[in-house]
Amino acid sequence: MKDRFLRALKRQPVDKTPIWLMRQAGRYLPEYRATREKAGNFLALCKTPELACEVTLQPLTRYALDAAIIFSDILTIPDAMGLELSLIENVGPVFNKSIKNIDQIKQLDVPDPYDKLNYVAKAITLVKKELNDTPLIGFAGSPWTLAAYMVEGRSSRDFAKVKKLSYSEPDSMHLLLQKLSVAVTSYLKMQIEAGADAIMLFDTWGGLLSESNYENLSLNYMGKILRSLEPTGIPTIVFTKGGGMWLDKISRIGSTCVGLDWMTDIKVAKQIIGHKVALQGNLDPAIMLTTKTIIEKETKNILDSYGIGNGHIFNLGHGITPDVPPENVKYLVDFVHSYSQKFHD
Amino acid sequence: MKDRFLRALKRQPVDKTPIWLMRQAGRYLPEYRATREKAGNFLALCKTPELACEVTLQPLTRYALDAAIIFSDILTIPDAMGLELSLIENVGPVFNKSIKNIDQIKQLDVPDPYDKLNYVAKAITLVKKELNDTPLIGFAGSPWTLAAYMVEGRSSRDFAKVKKLSYSEPDSMHLLLQKLSVAVTSYLKMQIEAGADAIMLFDTWGGLLSESNYENLSLNYMGKILRSLEPTGIPTIVFTKGGGMWLDKISRIGSTCVGLDWMTDIKVAKQIIGHKVALQGNLDPAIMLTTKTIIEKETKNILDSYGIGNGHIFNLGHGITPDVPPENVKYLVDFVHSYSQKFHD
Repeated sequence: MKDRFLRALKRQPVDKTPIWLMRQAGRYLPEYRATREKAGNFLALCKTPELACEVTLQPLTRYALDAAIIFSDILTIPDAMGLELSLIENVGPVFNKSIKNIDQIKQLDVPDPYDKLNYVAKAITLVKKELNDTPLIGFAGSPWTLAAYMVEGRSSRDFAKVKKLSYSEPDSMHLLLQKLSVAVTSYLKMQIEAGADAIMLFDTWGGLLSESNYENLSLNYMGKILRSLEPTGIPTIVFTKGGGMWLDKISRIGSTCVGLDWMTDIKVAKQIIGHKVALQGNLDPAIMLTTKTIIEKETKNILDSYGIGNGHIFNLGHGITPDVPPENVKYLVDFVHSYSQKFHD
Repeated sequence: MKDRFLRALKRQPVDKTPIWLMRQAGRYLPEYRATREKAGNFLALCKTPELACEVTLQPLTRYALDAAIIFSDILTIPDAMGLELSLIENVGPVFNKSIKNIDQIKQLDVPDPYDKLNYVAKAITLVKKELNDTPLIGFAGSPWTLAAYMVEGRSSRDFAKVKKLSYSEPDSMHLLLQKLSVAVTSYLKMQIEAGADAIMLFDTWGGLLSESNYENLSLNYMGKILRSLEPTGIPTIVFTKGGGMWLDKISRIGSTCVGLDWMTDIKVAKQIIGHKVALQGNLDPAIMLTTKTIIEKETKNILDSYGIGNGHIFNLGHGITPDVPPENVKYLVDFVHSYSQKFHD
């Protein structure tokens, strides 16, 4: 069943619960590390369509995954805006230029994706040719998450700079978020045009905000993007890490599916919003570091918690980590498919 | 009104909303930095009762705070267990020895607080002599949070080691948590005997767990500690950072008060648990980096959200950061006292 993932997104009946994994094309795979070596570095890998295509397909060669996700990074947009991204191992993303004031925000150009980010469209086109009907997910970071990195210049423990800017100069912050929303929208439209079958918005740092700021600075902008994508008819997934308190609000902004982090109880989430949207998640990524027995027990637990009913896409509650043994992933994927049959008919 | 804090904890009428700040004796104060300089380092400061007393009192000299909190660190217990703590600026706590396996857990001795942690009791005795009826808060880390640091050896982004241990060897983990619960209980009893008027449990990393693991590995052990302290009649505050999804469960383990992080809407929290326990919090610490106008606006917002009713203790949603201008703290404390009068009579 090639359309298992897309059917589950629409809460239609499927034969087995579909599964894919955030960061499934990643460092835990030796063949990924080899290709990245060939590219030189992470960003070169993102920007070389042939190699990005290669690593996108790698996990699908190994595992019976129900979807591919285009290999890229959420920070390609700020990079295209001229902030000069590098991704440093064990440090994470670092921008050579960060955003400090309103003048810099005013000067930021919304990039034309067909010019500055065309390498992503090319990679999508290449992947689609190889995929043989397996659906391909396109993605972007949420405006708030992009803004957080752009103002801090890198990842941060408390994101004090971007929060200070948000509280002190709300107009500057909204101008930045507005520009990013336009950029994300046209970037995602390009991905859809190139062949993406579904779209995911990663709101990695929305969970660091107070509830009212989350609505004001993150959720509203994601809603705006989703409304702009609506005419395409392409299904969408919204994922705010740490957003478990706000599931009801998240489910009302127009996405097809809500991604759950591992802290959220999927049974509770299903009760709150399962009648409105599909749910994706939510195994603790740390479980992938253990044994097959434990993976089986915890996976059962999640599938049982969701129980009978359409609209569940199995995933981790966050990206897979570099130290996961690849054979554990095979075990997980096959187990989800075999065990979940009893919840479908 | 010297007992404003203790009365609010018991949800009794007060004249103004009481306020104290997590980490109020800290690096943002120049006089604190001077005393720490004198001590040599952070841990020496904790372990020298006269100096710990001095820094505990510093913020109360400057501001009209309604409570003092004994200057110490949550990691004094693992240090007393022989893990050799150091606190390194811009890195955080680091243990020279970390916990890797069941043998090491078995070998851990529960420290006699009157022997290994007597410096805390001495500091409390000294502070109490100076305090003039202002209440003094004693505290400890939650068993889960202590275990997390002990297994990782330091702070971590994803706490993968301690989670792997929890999933792979639940019996080992529970033995560690059991030992830590006993240690925390006798440590807190010593603090109460020395004169602490209230007790706070800091569960800094409980919010990184799945809901069932949070109950199993963190909440249950905190409940056990609270039950052991019950005969003392001393009021207690439980604070799980990132626990906003689980407020109802947190409010049922027997604490007098629940601490709220800044992500949680205090109005929602009051609706869910305000009839059972007092609430403490929850201004975003990043707001303290801005201006008086913004501090006033956001503080009003929290006081208005709680509204009329007893049982609110104003605080930040997490510790105050080193770069906060001291005059902003004065402004906050005085504003909470003046503005909140309209909610009390």
